[in-house]
Amino acid sequence: MKHIEIYDTTLRDGTQAEDINLSTEDKIKIALKLDELGVRYIEGGWPGSNPVDRSFFSDIENYALKTARIAAFGSTHHPNFQAQEDPNLRAIIESGVSTATIFGKSWDVHVKEALRVTEQRNLEIVHDSVAYLRQKLSEVLFDAEHFFDGFKANPDYALAVLRQAYAAGARVLVLCDTNGGSLPSEVATITASVRKALPDAALGIHAHNDCELAVANSIAAVQSGATHIQGTMNGVGERCGNANLCSIIPTLEQKFARTYQCLPEGRLPQLTRISHFVSEVANVQPFSRQPFVGRSAFAHKGGIHASAVNRMASLYEHMDPEEVGNRQRVLLTELAGRSNIVSIARRFGFHLDKDEPVVKGLLKELKDNASLGYDYAAAEASVELLLFKKLARRGVRQFFRLINFRVIESKQGRDAEPMSEATVMVEVEGVEEHTAASGRGPVNALDNALRKALSGFYPRLNEMRLLDFKVRVLNGSKRSDGGTASVVRVLIESGDQHSRWVTVGVSFNIIEASWQALVDSITYKLYKDEGEQRAKLG
Amino acid sequence: MKHIEIYDTTLRDGTQAEDINLSTEDKIKIALKLDELGVRYIEGGWPGSNPVDRSFFSDIENYALKTARIAAFGSTHHPNFQAQEDPNLRAIIESGVSTATIFGKSWDVHVKEALRVTEQRNLEIVHDSVAYLRQKLSEVLFDAEHFFDGFKANPDYALAVLRQAYAAGARVLVLCDTNGGSLPSEVATITASVRKALPDAALGIHAHNDCELAVANSIAAVQSGATHIQGTMNGVGERCGNANLCSIIPTLEQKFARTYQCLPEGRLPQLTRISHFVSEVANVQPFSRQPFVGRSAFAHKGGIHASAVNRMASLYEHMDPEEVGNRQRVLLTELAGRSNIVSIARRFGFHLDKDEPVVKGLLKELKDNASLGYDYAAAEASVELLLFKKLARRGVRQFFRLINFRVIESKQGRDAEPMSEATVMVEVEGVEEHTAASGRGPVNALDNALRKALSGFYPRLNEMRLLDFKVRVLNGSKRSDGGTASVVRVLIESGDQHSRWVTVGVSFNIIEASWQALVDSITYKLYKDEGEQRAKLG
Repeated sequence: MKHIEIYDTTLRDGTQAEDINLSTEDKIKIALKLDELGVRYIEGGWPGSNPVDRSFFSDIENYALKTARIAAFGSTHHPNFQAQEDPNLRAIIESGVSTATIFGKSWDVHVKEALRVTEQRNLEIVHDSVAYLRQKLSEVLFDAEHFFDGFKANPDYALAVLRQAYAAGARVLVLCDTNGGSLPSEVATITASVRKALPDAALGIHAHNDCELAVANSIAAVQSGATHIQGTMNGVGERCGNANLCSIIPTLEQKFARTYQCLPEGRLPQLTRISHFVSEVANVQPFSRQPFVGRSAFAHKGGIHASAVNRMASLYEHMDPEEVGNRQRVLLTELAGRSNIVSIARRFGFHLDKDEPVVKGLLKELKDNASLGYDYAAAEASVELLLFKKLARRGVRQFFRLINFRVIESKQGRDAEPMSEATVMVEVEGVEEHTAASGRGPVNALDNALRKALSGFYPRLNEMRLLDFKVRVLNGSKRSDGGTASVVRVLIESGDQHSRWVTVGVSFNIIEASWQALVDSITYKLYKDEGEQRAKLG
Repeated sequence: MKHIEIYDTTLRDGTQAEDINLSTEDKIKIALKLDELGVRYIEGGWPGSNPVDRSFFSDIENYALKTARIAAFGSTHHPNFQAQEDPNLRAIIESGVSTATIFGKSWDVHVKEALRVTEQRNLEIVHDSVAYLRQKLSEVLFDAEHFFDGFKANPDYALAVLRQAYAAGARVLVLCDTNGGSLPSEVATITASVRKALPDAALGIHAHNDCELAVANSIAAVQSGATHIQGTMNGVGERCGNANLCSIIPTLEQKFARTYQCLPEGRLPQLTRISHFVSEVANVQPFSRQPFVGRSAFAHKGGIHASAVNRMASLYEHMDPEEVGNRQRVLLTELAGRSNIVSIARRFGFHLDKDEPVVKGLLKELKDNASLGYDYAAAEASVELLLFKKLARRGVRQFFRLINFRVIESKQGRDAEPMSEATVMVEVEGVEEHTAASGRGPVNALDNALRKALSGFYPRLNEMRLLDFKVRVLNGSKRSDGGTASVVRVLIESGDQHSRWVTVGVSFNIIEASWQALVDSITYKLYKDEGEQRAKLG
């Protein structure tokens, strides 16, 4: 099998996407997952350009990565400097990486119009930049910007640029389709020409999706001899995005009769989970029709397909969805079967039969709620709670009952900070508790008031923290009464010293949706602690 | 120039997408726009399968289409019937179309496992079905289902099926990659083999996007001799969707030096508008990174790109966005230069110099706010408003001033709907207005109360609607005081009959963040209308 190096640039080129902004902490989280997936390189950012990128390189040193190397990005040195004086190249060295990737001009018109130097001066700049970094670091990769456009305009000059970088010690020459306008047939022919001109150099491909051809262009380059692919998770990136690694990796590993290997053995089934993780951290809606990893990728709606798929999945599926960690969905009979419910109940010590009414009733409730927007795939704790409530008659207790709440937001004057105050009246252990609290925002005030009411009875609530809070507006653009009356879904992630759990709330009212998720989160903690105690005693 | 027939199946295969359901009226609306765009065929549905499809065929007869023909879809006749008795084929004839497209089996394993007949019987079925329709209608197209998989498994049988359809009078033989698992290199080779085996037949391609290769596969087929392409607007369709006509058409027309023509002369600039129209009617969020037609397709965020694009657009754009009716956007980020501010001011009739203190001051404010989480790349209207406020001393007026607001959320009992009530006190045109309103959720209540206070003074506010509302929690998992006290960014998109604009608000309090975006949105509308009036008078 031929090994293909996967070079992920989600953290650098990916953040050029209009709707993607990552903090240093977001970047660290994503880098750790990319390492789990098993990519060869993670491009962390451009140390010379901004504080988030700089702090990423110092923070990531605290983690021991298993398979990935961290690469820093930058450009060839400024025409007015020597390589060793260039602040940009120095920032790369100071970032502490052992791998640098620098881009340089390979299209003659860019040398003239954008860089504004002679063709000869650009060759020196490329050579000196690579050579200087090569002295200081263990490896240098060279991104030949606009390579395909450059080759079409002036093949000799484009090749001369690659030769300079290669002679100066670049380990990989990466052919970039920076503007995304090249066709697979062009990429195949030009890559093959480069392969012939520089037979010993390792070649890479960096494609953009402006013609919806980035995946095809990356694969065409590999078929013509490239062994290194640059791309991003879910294809995020500037304009129409970069080449989508979530499509390239499974296509190369699954569609070429085991000719190519991109990830360490056994990692491909992590793909769907890690793709969704990246979307969550970046807070972008996952694209449901996304190949391989999308929610609809293996969803069958057509009556004919759906019944045939039940008989023999390979008739209407190009591969087994589990190879990429996704699953087949036959719509209409959509949600979890009764056997899933039985197995969840078992985890909590309740032995149910598939045919019991409580199981059927819960299945119906799950389906009805899912159609309203409750995302149970993300919020398993809320599913477990629905189960607990259904089982209430079998001795599962109710910890508290809401009588009412009120939240008041008031703002005095344009520049004043608003005041948030909540009152909560609940019945807990037969006692009526009425509390008030303020907070930083309405949900925080409600959370504070509810805990005040409960924590005297359940002191272990003090162990619990709210870790994350996500809001998504469903069907945002269509309601005749305007977007602010749209349905809102809130996911709250909570944790204590032992575990983390996610709960969901849905309402047209963001306070109500938050309240649902908050109440579920606290109730889940109480059930969980009781279950642990029962397990200890039993 | 070689003419390529575009066959749109948005109304049939497109509606197999998980999230797409079209009424008869929706289908008519879309068909009329597709005709405006200039596609050759519009596949309206499967008359044998459901009432929506049946009524489409009778309703569309009331419209005179300019370039498109309506095609009806169906399958070869049932093995238990003769062609002329088959209810499915009769439904096609009764639908009143003059073009029928029927699919038949060309993969031997499907003949055996799905159709459950002999290979010979399937050949008869294909022949008789096409021949019968051909007697009754002016043309028949044959979709060879699973053709590429079939050819790989048994090329002789796959070709024999095509020969039967051709002999029976099919005008186009459409090679279908039904499961979407084929590679461009395979499509190219197999299409070329078919081209050789049936040199006089017109060939078509019908690709699915399961490997993110449907556009590349369609283009590969054309390069190997196909002259007919089936696909959908925006690539909607079952699982990962069909081949995206919005990418295929401009790629063929723009990237092959005028070798191919898909639409009548001059229609391509309609593409972006019609793509968005289809998304609107289907009620799906347009995909912002979609090639050619997406909102981000020609959006530049990187500082280097943005400044170079200002100088010479072709340096970082693979084509002129206006060719497809889209536009270039230079996003304002912390990197935004003073020249962007000058050019925004110019659009609103203020001639500023790059070195004026107001420009420098605004740039500083933009940078400071961006570091707090204000996403000005997404919210251009908020930038324009900051500019207006800076220019206040030059005669830009303040439309209203907040004195105070209060929002009360109250919920009685666990299952009750919460009540949202807002009061607003504002000074407007020297008058103090104090209003109250309820709403579906706190932001809707505030919106209602504020409009109540203002619309007597500014009646054109009634033209404005809130279209979308997005909430993003920043640094969600980092704060020691828990997620519900995190900083929240709200983006509100609004529109009137002329345009759409996005505004931003940031606060730890979601109500406050929403209020900021809401106030900016309303203020923007007032400035915009005033500007239009000034332009009319001046």
